[in-house]
Amino acid sequence: MKHILSVKNPQVKEWKKRLTKKEREKTGTFLVEGFHLVEEAFKAEAIIDLIISEEIDVPSWDYGDIPITIVTKEIIKELSDTETPQGIFALCRQLDYPEILSTAQTFIAIDQVQDPGNMGTIIRTADAAGVDAVIIGEGTVDIYNPKVVRSGQGSHFHLPIVKTNLSAFIDALKERHIPVYGTALENGRNYREIEKTDTFCLILGNEGSGVSKQVLSKTDTNLYIPIHGKSESLNVAVAAGILMYYFK
Amino acid sequence: MKHILSVKNPQVKEWKKRLTKKEREKTGTFLVEGFHLVEEAFKAEAIIDLIISEEIDVPSWDYGDIPITIVTKEIIKELSDTETPQGIFALCRQLDYPEILSTAQTFIAIDQVQDPGNMGTIIRTADAAGVDAVIIGEGTVDIYNPKVVRSGQGSHFHLPIVKTNLSAFIDALKERHIPVYGTALENGRNYREIEKTDTFCLILGNEGSGVSKQVLSKTDTNLYIPIHGKSESLNVAVAAGILMYYFK
Repeated sequence: MKHILSVKNPQVKEWKKRLTKKEREKTGTFLVEGFHLVEEAFKAEAIIDLIISEEIDVPSWDYGDIPITIVTKEIIKELSDTETPQGIFALCRQLDYPEILSTAQTFIAIDQVQDPGNMGTIIRTADAAGVDAVIIGEGTVDIYNPKVVRSGQGSHFHLPIVKTNLSAFIDALKERHIPVYGTALENGRNYREIEKTDTFCLILGNEGSGVSKQVLSKTDTNLYIPIHGKSESLNVAVAAGILMYYFK
Repeated sequence: MKHILSVKNPQVKEWKKRLTKKEREKTGTFLVEGFHLVEEAFKAEAIIDLIISEEIDVPSWDYGDIPITIVTKEIIKELSDTETPQGIFALCRQLDYPEILSTAQTFIAIDQVQDPGNMGTIIRTADAAGVDAVIIGEGTVDIYNPKVVRSGQGSHFHLPIVKTNLSAFIDALKERHIPVYGTALENGRNYREIEKTDTFCLILGNEGSGVSKQVLSKTDTNLYIPIHGKSESLNVAVAAGILMYYFK
C-alpha cells in the first residue's frame, strides 16, 4: 500500500489527466468516484488502481492484485468532480466488446446527445430495460466524462457501450435484417403503431436538433412519441426510456 | 419604461429575493429567465414585471400594461441562475387552480422528489403526455426553484401544478373513484398487467427512498417497472415518463 502526500506527486498528475477526454481516449482509462461506482468497477474487474483518502476506512473487499494508494484530502479534492467527495476513486480500464456489434440483438444508438446527465441516464435506462448494447455515434458527449459516469450509476460496467460510425453501423444492421428505428418530431409513425420485434435498433438524437438528417435517411422507419399537451418535445432520456420499455 | 443602473436599487433587491423559496412562497411570485420561458409566461398572462438588459433588443410583443424595466449587465448577473444569461427575465405570479383537484381526471403526484432537474423534467413530461394536473406533496423540491423552472421548459405555464397534502388528496380521489397507483421496487404489480382506465393518479417518489410507506399504504395498487438488466433502479423522471405514456 503506497501513501502519497503531495498533490505535486507525478502519480497524482497522471491520474488527474483522466479528467480530460483526450487523455482518457489516449490511455483507454477513466476515473470513477464514490463507493457505489468503485464497487461496480471492482465487480466488473475493471480497476487498475484504487485511490483512497487517508480519512476513510478501506472497504474490506478481496482486492487480489489491485494496487491501493492512500492519499490526502487535498489530493482527493484535486481528482474530484463533486463538491463533497466520498474519498474513494478507481482508475479503470475502458471495457472492450469486439464482437458485440455482430452478436447483439437489441440496440440503442445515440446521435450527438450533448448533456452528460442525459447520456448517463440513457445508459442506466438501457441497462434496466435489458437492451443488449449502447452504440455511441460521433459528436456525442464522451461516455467516460465524470458526470456521465455518475448519472450512469454503475451501468457503464453492466452492458457494452461501443463508439462507432452510425452510418456504417446501420449498414451492418441491415445486412443482419435488424429493424432500425430513427426518432423524429415529424414525418414519422406513432411508436405505438409499430409491432414489437425480437431485434431492433432505436436511434435517439441531439437535445436541440434531434437525429441528424443523414442518419434519419438511412433508417427503416422513423418514430415519434405523440405530444398530447402544449410542450414542444420530451427530454431525450425520457423519450429513450419510453421507447426502450415499449420495445422490450 | 424605467431604467435601473445600480445593483443596489431597492427594486433589484426586491426581485433578487425571489431566488429564495421563502420569498417566493410569501409573495406568490417567481422569476423566469431567458427568451423561451419569458414568452411562455407572456402567453399565459403570468407576467408582473419584465426585466430586460440594456444590451439586448426588446422583443416586439404587444405588452399591454406590463411594466418594462431596462437594467445593466451587472443587474442581470445578480438575478441570473445561469452562467451565460440571455438578458431577459419576467417576474411572474404563481398560477392558481382552485377547482382542479375536484375536476381533473388524470394526475401525476410527487412525493418528495429532491432533484430540480428531475422535477422540471416530470412537469415537462406530464405536459407532453397530456396529464391533467401535477400534484406536489410536502417535502418536494420547490417547483419555482430556477432550475426546476428551466428544466420544465415552459410547461409550468401549460398545466396546473398544485401543492397539497398527499394523504388528504388520496382520500379525495377515492371518493371520486379514481384509481390511485403508487410505485415501488418491490411488492407491487408489473405496470403492464394493469388495464388502462380513463382516470388515474400515478405517484412517484424520492430518488433514494421512493414513495413513502405512509403514502404507499393508502394507494389502490402499487406498480413496479421491471428491471431486466443489472441496474438497481430507473431515474425517477424516466420512470414517470414510461408510466404516464403507458396510461395515457
